Amino acid sequence: MKKNPEEGLQYNFDITNLGEPKLSTPIIMSDDLGDGRADYVNDNDRLFFSVDSEIDTDGNRVPLVKDTVEKAGPRKKIYFNPAHVHAAICTCGGICPGLNNVIRSVVRCFWYRYGVRRISGVQFGYRGLLENSPWPLIPLDPDVVDDIQEKGGTILGSARGGGMQVDEIVDSLERLNINILIAIGGDGTLRGAYDIGEEIKKRGLKISVIGVPKTIDNDLSFIQSSFGFDTAVGAAVPSVRGAHVEAKNSINGIGLVKVMGRESGFIAAHTSLAQSDVNFCLIPENPFDLYGPNGLLAHLKERIMTRKHAVILIAEGAGQDLVPSTGQKDPSGNVKYADIGIFLKSEIKKYFDEEGIEVNIKYIDPSYIIRSAPANSFDSIYCARLGAHAAHAAMAGKTQCLISQINNRFVHIPIKQAVCKRNHVDVEGSLWRDVIENTRQPFSMKNDKSID
Amino acid sequence: MKKNPEEGLQYNFDITNLGEPKLSTPIIMSDDLGDGRADYVNDNDRLFFSVDSEIDTDGNRVPLVKDTVEKAGPRKKIYFNPAHVHAAICTCGGICPGLNNVIRSVVRCFWYRYGVRRISGVQFGYRGLLENSPWPLIPLDPDVVDDIQEKGGTILGSARGGGMQVDEIVDSLERLNINILIAIGGDGTLRGAYDIGEEIKKRGLKISVIGVPKTIDNDLSFIQSSFGFDTAVGAAVPSVRGAHVEAKNSINGIGLVKVMGRESGFIAAHTSLAQSDVNFCLIPENPFDLYGPNGLLAHLKERIMTRKHAVILIAEGAGQDLVPSTGQKDPSGNVKYADIGIFLKSEIKKYFDEEGIEVNIKYIDPSYIIRSAPANSFDSIYCARLGAHAAHAAMAGKTQCLISQINNRFVHIPIKQAVCKRNHVDVEGSLWRDVIENTRQPFSMKNDKSID
Amino acid sequence: MKKNPEEGLQYNFDITNLGEPKLSTPIIMSDDLGDGRADYVNDNDRLFFSVDSEIDTDGNRVPLVKDTVEKAGPRKKIYFNPAHVHAAICTCGGICPGLNNVIRSVVRCFWYRYGVRRISGVQFGYRGLLENSPWPLIPLDPDVVDDIQEKGGTILGSARGGGMQVDEIVDSLERLNINILIAIGGDGTLRGAYDIGEEIKKRGLKISVIGVPKTIDNDLSFIQSSFGFDTAVGAAVPSVRGAHVEAKNSINGIGLVKVMGRESGFIAAHTSLAQSDVNFCLIPENPFDLYGPNGLLAHLKERIMTRKHAVILIAEGAGQDLVPSTGQKDPSGNVKYADIGIFLKSEIKKYFDEEGIEVNIKYIDPSYIIRSAPANSFDSIYCARLGAHAAHAAMAGKTQCLISQINNRFVHIPIKQAVCKRNHVDVEGSLWRDVIENTRQPFSMKNDKSID
Amino acid sequence: MKKNPEEGLQYNFDITNLGEPKLSTPIIMSDDLGDGRADYVNDNDRLFFSVDSEIDTDGNRVPLVKDTVEKAGPRKKIYFNPAHVHAAICTCGGICPGLNNVIRSVVRCFWYRYGVRRISGVQFGYRGLLENSPWPLIPLDPDVVDDIQEKGGTILGSARGGGMQVDEIVDSLERLNINILIAIGGDGTLRGAYDIGEEIKKRGLKISVIGVPKTIDNDLSFIQSSFGFDTAVGAAVPSVRGAHVEAKNSINGIGLVKVMGRESGFIAAHTSLAQSDVNFCLIPENPFDLYGPNGLLAHLKERIMTRKHAVILIAEGAGQDLVPSTGQKDPSGNVKYADIGIFLKSEIKKYFDEEGIEVNIKYIDPSYIIRSAPANSFDSIYCARLGAHAAHAAMAGKTQCLISQINNRFVHIPIKQAVCKRNHVDVEGSLWRDVIENTRQPFSMKNDKSID
Repeated sequence: MKKNPEEGLQYNFDITNLGEPKLSTPIIMSDDLGDGRADYVNDNDRLFFSVDSEIDTDGNRVPLVKDTVEKAGPRKKIYFNPAHVHAAICTCGGICPGLNNVIRSVVRCFWYRYGVRRISGVQFGYRGLLENSPWPLIPLDPDVVDDIQEKGGTILGSARGGGMQVDEIVDSLERLNINILIAIGGDGTLRGAYDIGEEIKKRGLKISVIGVPKTIDNDLSFIQSSFGFDTAVGAAVPSVRGAHVEAKNSINGIGLVKVMGRESGFIAAHTSLAQSDVNFCLIPENPFDLYGPNGLLAHLKERIMTRKHAVILIAEGAGQDLVPSTGQKDPSGNVKYADIGIFLKSEIKKYFDEEGIEVNIKYIDPSYIIRSAPANSFDSIYCARLGAHAAHAAMAGKTQCLISQINNRFVHIPIKQAVCKRNHVDVEGSLWRDVIENTRQPFSMKNDKSID
Repeated sequence: MKKNPEEGLQYNFDITNLGEPKLSTPIIMSDDLGDGRADYVNDNDRLFFSVDSEIDTDGNRVPLVKDTVEKAGPRKKIYFNPAHVHAAICTCGGICPGLNNVIRSVVRCFWYRYGVRRISGVQFGYRGLLENSPWPLIPLDPDVVDDIQEKGGTILGSARGGGMQVDEIVDSLERLNINILIAIGGDGTLRGAYDIGEEIKKRGLKISVIGVPKTIDNDLSFIQSSFGFDTAVGAAVPSVRGAHVEAKNSINGIGLVKVMGRESGFIAAHTSLAQSDVNFCLIPENPFDLYGPNGLLAHLKERIMTRKHAVILIAEGAGQDLVPSTGQKDPSGNVKYADIGIFLKSEIKKYFDEEGIEVNIKYIDPSYIIRSAPANSFDSIYCARLGAHAAHAAMAGKTQCLISQINNRFVHIPIKQAVCKRNHVDVEGSLWRDVIENTRQPFSMKNDKSID
Repeated sequence: MKKNPEEGLQYNFDITNLGEPKLSTPIIMSDDLGDGRADYVNDNDRLFFSVDSEIDTDGNRVPLVKDTVEKAGPRKKIYFNPAHVHAAICTCGGICPGLNNVIRSVVRCFWYRYGVRRISGVQFGYRGLLENSPWPLIPLDPDVVDDIQEKGGTILGSARGGGMQVDEIVDSLERLNINILIAIGGDGTLRGAYDIGEEIKKRGLKISVIGVPKTIDNDLSFIQSSFGFDTAVGAAVPSVRGAHVEAKNSINGIGLVKVMGRESGFIAAHTSLAQSDVNFCLIPENPFDLYGPNGLLAHLKERIMTRKHAVILIAEGAGQDLVPSTGQKDPSGNVKYADIGIFLKSEIKKYFDEEGIEVNIKYIDPSYIIRSAPANSFDSIYCARLGAHAAHAAMAGKTQCLISQINNRFVHIPIKQAVCKRNHVDVEGSLWRDVIENTRQPFSMKNDKSID
Repeated sequence: MKKNPEEGLQYNFDITNLGEPKLSTPIIMSDDLGDGRADYVNDNDRLFFSVDSEIDTDGNRVPLVKDTVEKAGPRKKIYFNPAHVHAAICTCGGICPGLNNVIRSVVRCFWYRYGVRRISGVQFGYRGLLENSPWPLIPLDPDVVDDIQEKGGTILGSARGGGMQVDEIVDSLERLNINILIAIGGDGTLRGAYDIGEEIKKRGLKISVIGVPKTIDNDLSFIQSSFGFDTAVGAAVPSVRGAHVEAKNSINGIGLVKVMGRESGFIAAHTSLAQSDVNFCLIPENPFDLYGPNGLLAHLKERIMTRKHAVILIAEGAGQDLVPSTGQKDPSGNVKYADIGIFLKSEIKKYFDEEGIEVNIKYIDPSYIIRSAPANSFDSIYCARLGAHAAHAAMAGKTQCLISQINNRFVHIPIKQAVCKRNHVDVEGSLWRDVIENTRQPFSMKNDKSID
């Protein structure tokens, strides 16, 4: 991480001191610690990314990673005059628990804290900002968003695509007099937000673009835990439990559950820890062989022979080297994966048929049930706070940054920095170690791996 | 925080290098980063407590708080010979979601990773170690603890008290040849564990005492989030929702819910964010007046007059200055609080009777339902990992320390340090700010508070 | 049951044959069985109340109870011209799961099936129809009631009282041109509906009054199972489970749970069967002594001595002969019961204190959490159908009857008949037998009972 | 229904009057109504199947269906000497919520009420009784079955097949000295039980065979509602809700959910009533066309054009005339259905592609999640009582009958009678009428149907 985090964070226009605007919030804030009032956050409040330490040449404990990041929160001086703000919110990509909670919180913070009265919902992600979009903006206020958090999904609708047509989008922002854009979405969405920000800069416009990172897979860097992730893990548990019941109750039963996780197996890993029934947790970060003496099927056979049942939990991106590519891409540009679950089910069946062993395989794919669940209390709290911090950042004139929580503190991360790499399960780290100790699966199921 | 964290952490006996014991775990570990094996943790891996930074005189960003803490996890060299270990586990104080999960995880880690075969459960907390205890030790193994996590509470039973009889307890440890004691409990339990450790030191015994901090109130310092807390918040939500329904459906309905929180209002604060129905969140950290122009009752009346219903969420320790003391203490030595919920219900009724306004008050106290809930997926994961880290610490010969998660990393905290102060909701901080913005309650309901 | 059920059912005005009105429903109905169209229900379709048989003097199996009841459902010829209908709905008494479901279904059936466009919600039960009611009617249509079933309670608000001011209410009905009143409520509400119907008859008005029986206690006669009851039992289960965890985890722990059931112990009895943790199920129908050799406390002591923990589930109306009367009545005229739970907790404590036995009692009163729960799927289905049948009955010109399900068929029951007696748990019958076999409690805990 | 129900019910051996055996149950029973003791059930207590009435030639209301059925429950005189009983229980076919509850209840009733001490679990259905079965009997007692009801599935395992090898099974019963067989299973299992009973009769053995009907589809005749059905409907709801969220949140989103229901659409119909989001409920009883002006696709297109999203709930057996047969059978001899959900998804996609309309289809198949769910409180109560009644029937020497609930009373139904026809959704009846009014789908989607 050699980048200077400042760079991306700097917004490209001057701060106009509006003084303290007349707010409709009950919060009384101050700069003074200890006066019993909530405290403003200062642009100089910076946090270290990491808590790891090392001993320097002087024998002192110093931070191993010296990069710092700006603390999020309400600023004393804000950039925008609330009376002139037209804020827009869009939700992009697949749905994820907590979207409505974030929308609700953004709207309420703009409305109550800052007195903003023009807040619009953009329908179906960036596609709602394209020139030929058939979907009008939806006016938002606290009444409209009241109770929306009790439903899964997003009241704005969500769609992939549209993020490449940067010109069209910035044209729309100009035409609609939008000066704040809150984009809730994943990697592609955030890249789009960055590009939109660049175009805004080029045109010399004064529009703040703030990202709220959404990745049910929890695979964005600089994001301690993405919203909806905890709900997703909880929502995956009943499927694993069901697979276990089906497996135990059948002759040589095998329960196979596929969960989300295109490039990172966080959902699968956490679900394996949340629920003690998983015997094989398969994730993209830990490649495995199907056949051969140390392959999955040999280990599976051994378990079936001794324990009479097995539960396999597989992330959708695991084992993609084993299955022929579809060659297709989705509108966000992501490669469409072959369905590893269906493939694995068929390989297992074939294998045991050849071995002459009766097995009963039950395949469960709960992905849509998980994605569409309403946020649980953990994510409700997280999203309520995330949305407010996005509104604070936007009003302060921040742009091309996203709101994240690092070490349990809300921070601003330059989008450019956040999207430069993915977050992965470290197979040498403590999470995966704890997973392996819980599932008691072989540490490696590669034949060429000398480890064992 | 002027203490040197090293002090408490140092165990008071030599490390015997057993070499790599024959383990029954599938985990293959190494010291080498990048070899694809799980990595041992080194005693030199230390983490900063805090990510806050400041600019030093040279203009460099440096840590504001320089204290560091030892990273938890399996060590390459362990102190105890697994064949000689007799580990004991006890659960103390009130029950809390996740206790069985921690027990299960401790047992499995001792058994599978370290090959320990003598693991005992102590019944009813420290009282099970007293001389005249009628409750025998319960032998524990993976079969006994299989599935116990699906139930709330603790299979060992839990009780207050016993922690002061340090001599008796150490006598019992000696008599029972226990050389590892894992004590799961709150402030008092941890103080007890420290004292037991001191007595052990005095007697020159080689017994490791490890604490697993349990506080449903989330009020221990150096504990990012205590296990069971997330489940507790989630379990409180239906009561708040019920109170809201009752309130909205009655003529001038008032729903009143009391939750745990003797000295810290974390459950109440988080529940208010998880669930948008709370209008007044009352916590110990933010004293309030009942009467007077800026008192709770005046604000409540205003809300009833305008909105026709209200929901109040109160932590059990809030408003204790308003209610006559019981003068009693529980066996742990905690002052028994008067029931603020019943008191408040009666004060509200009296007030509105005097005002001649019909109100319908519904009081809900879900405390026992919350405490006894099984851990949700978040806490299941957390407890699974917490327990394993406790076993790792014990086997490494650590003592008088507790297992905690700080900045999402598992660490060892000297007990002496951890119990020296409570964790409180910072009323000037971002959590309380977000609560106030969510409930839209007055920032202060003290009459003498000049703020507003 | 000597009454002729016809009497109460006869509406006191002529049927105007409007022919088949233009409906907005997709249902195509007919009189012909087997034509693939939904069939109208005929006023001659009558069902036996009971399936019990006996052998008559000729040796033939004949019904033991010969009374029959009219089948509910859409009639081919309806009384009211939908264009002239102003239908009103009110919800009375305490809240209960499913109220919103019934409201929603009534509105949708009026609107879609019959094309009625004037539907009003009366606020706070009959009190919303009193002369000086401050609460206006709420206009209802399918949009207003969309999704309301996802929340507990009633969007109309509910209150006790008002039912005695029959004159005022009928004045209001006349003034507001209401010609259909759907009253959802319990015993008192239904008596009120009957009286309102009598006054309507006296005045020669053409107003249909239909009752939808609401009793979370399930204690109305001629009602197989009241809506909300199944949800209530399910909602009581976590409290019993919690009480069991608390009891098992404490030294001589006693979990005490109070549930609804003023005069009938159906909730307590069913909950005891739904959840195997109850050791003593106490209901109004089965009086018990506290003291003496066969009293509850002696049996409780025996259980504590042998099993070390106990769970008691008590209906609020049980043991009222043991506790001093409050002498108060609620606005519905029901005697206010002393809180048997708090009384019992204190008696148990006193008893064991005197016996010198340490016990830990945890008392849980989940009543408001249960009442305010949203309907589960069983009750959602039931309420959806109940509401539609109420609308069908009203449009057909039925009056002074209520909608009930008997032997799983929807029927019309004359209110006069329904309110003449309560439904009770038959202590000699199969339900109570199954409860006793499940709890394994003594069949009687009266000292003077020779049974044992 | 011309059969005489007596025939099948008569057991083929004499009743030995053991007098009142010494029981370990607290229940004190008697023959006398009104003495406060639970009452024995008499073999002469017979109930009418149906409550429908007609007017006979004398103008009297008489039952339309005159068949009666024997009431279930404990008899004063039982056939078997408990000391000589070896009872066996097996669970056959696919799993279903409530199996463990029934097992538990059967075991407890045998043990506590009758003092039976030899109770065995047969593994994997009838296959566990085949000559070459590798699975030993599992000894059952109250400790073994304690808490098993908290898990889905069956502790005995379940499998299809085996029921045709009647000779082998009766040989095993003889060899194992089993004199009571409780078979829990569906249509095929019950036919098997009948055949086993016939072979027993032929051999002159004294073995009671009692069936407990299990059909998650609720499609057995003479069974008011099969156990597990209510849980299944409740467990299907989140998938429909998820499909609705996915549909509403996508551009022209279509949510497609497949639920169980091979020949009867009860789960789909009830789920549509439980959850108001279904727009098209497709069941086997109501055939539909895909194409053509009145076909499903035309109606779906209309909905997408006007409402922008749609939810389709389809029973697995619906539309099987539209999809090529697999030609395969499962081990129970049931035709393996082609997956109508996958077929429909592909047809919808093809259709809209051809129409040039972007749609987003999300297909959810929650079948295994539903089947493996633990019983909800309704089914827990039902199964607790069902199992006890099965044990009562067996001890009384009943055979070749099953335990059912009709009109909310537990009864004995001769198996021969029960399996002679299926239960279907009556498309002219009130349930389907209420479904159609709820979904507002066309009453028929057949092109040749003149109706509309």
